[in-house]
Amino acid sequence: MITYQTPVLQEWVDYNGHLRDAFYLLIFSYATDAFMDRIGLASDDRASSGTSLFTLEAHINYLHEVKRGAEVEVHTQVIGHDHKRVHLYHSLHHAGGGEAMAASEQMLLHVDLAGPKSAPFGADSLRRMQAFAQQQGELAAPQCLGRIIGLPVS
Amino acid sequence: MITYQTPVLQEWVDYNGHLRDAFYLLIFSYATDAFMDRIGLASDDRASSGTSLFTLEAHINYLHEVKRGAEVEVHTQVIGHDHKRVHLYHSLHHAGGGEAMAASEQMLLHVDLAGPKSAPFGADSLRRMQAFAQQQGELAAPQCLGRIIGLPVS
Repeated sequence: MITYQTPVLQEWVDYNGHLRDAFYLLIFSYATDAFMDRIGLASDDRASSGTSLFTLEAHINYLHEVKRGAEVEVHTQVIGHDHKRVHLYHSLHHAGGGEAMAASEQMLLHVDLAGPKSAPFGADSLRRMQAFAQQQGELAAPQCLGRIIGLPVS
Repeated sequence: MITYQTPVLQEWVDYNGHLRDAFYLLIFSYATDAFMDRIGLASDDRASSGTSLFTLEAHINYLHEVKRGAEVEVHTQVIGHDHKRVHLYHSLHHAGGGEAMAASEQMLLHVDLAGPKSAPFGADSLRRMQAFAQQQGELAAPQCLGRIIGLPVS
C-alpha cells in the first residue's frame, strides 16, 4: 500500500548529496500522516475530533543510499493494533517499487489532545484500519521487524 | 558528555507547537556530527581523510513532548565499538539537564567514501573515542537499550 511519494529535496541531503539519516524518518513521518488520512485522522479531522497519533517508538534500518532528486515512495503495512495503539511498518523505495532502501517499524498511540491522554480509536478509524490492512497482501513481507541493535558477536 | 545544544526551531514543530518525531532524530544526527568532531572525523577531516560515519540502524524512544523554543541538549555515550563500528546512545534533555525527553541508540559504520566501503578506524580516532568513553561516567545509565518494538502482551 503506497502512502506517500516525494522527490528527495535539496534541504534533506548532506554535503555529499545523500539523504541525511533524520530525513529518511521525516519521509516516514509524512507517510504516517498519509496513513492517518486513510483512517480518518487527517488534520481536518484532528481539529474536529481532537485526537491524533503520537509516536512512542521508532526503529529505522538504512539499507541503501538515497540521492538528491530521486523520486521515492513509501509502502506502509499495519503489523498489528489494539484499541489505542497501532504498529506500522514503512519501507522506502524508488518510485515504481524495487528493493527497499530503508525500513522503519513504529509504535503509535492514539491520543486525546485535550489531556493529552491516550484514547481508544473510534469505530470508524478501526474499520478503516482493518480495511487498509486487508489491502496490503501485495507487499513484500517486512525484512526488518523485531530487531535489537548491537555489535556483531565475533 | 554533552555534545550538542540547540533551541527547538519553528520549522521543526507541528501545528500544535510540538517537535515532530523526525526532528528529534535530526537533533540526534547533529549530536552524532558533534561526536565525529570529537573523534577527529569533523567535516574538515572528512574532506582530507575521505572517511565518514554512516548510520546503519537507529532506535528512538519518545518519552516527553518538546515544545517550540525550548533550549535542549544532547548527552552522548559510547556503548561499544569494534574496529569499524560504533554503538552510540544519545539522550535529549532541557538545557541544564534533568529527565530525558527522548533517547536514541544507533549503530554507525566507518566508511571510506572512495568506495564507498567500510574501513577500520584510524588509531587517532580510536584513541579519542576511548578518551570520550572514559569521560561519560557522570551520565545516567541508559534507560532505553536493546529494546524490541511490539504491542504489549495482554
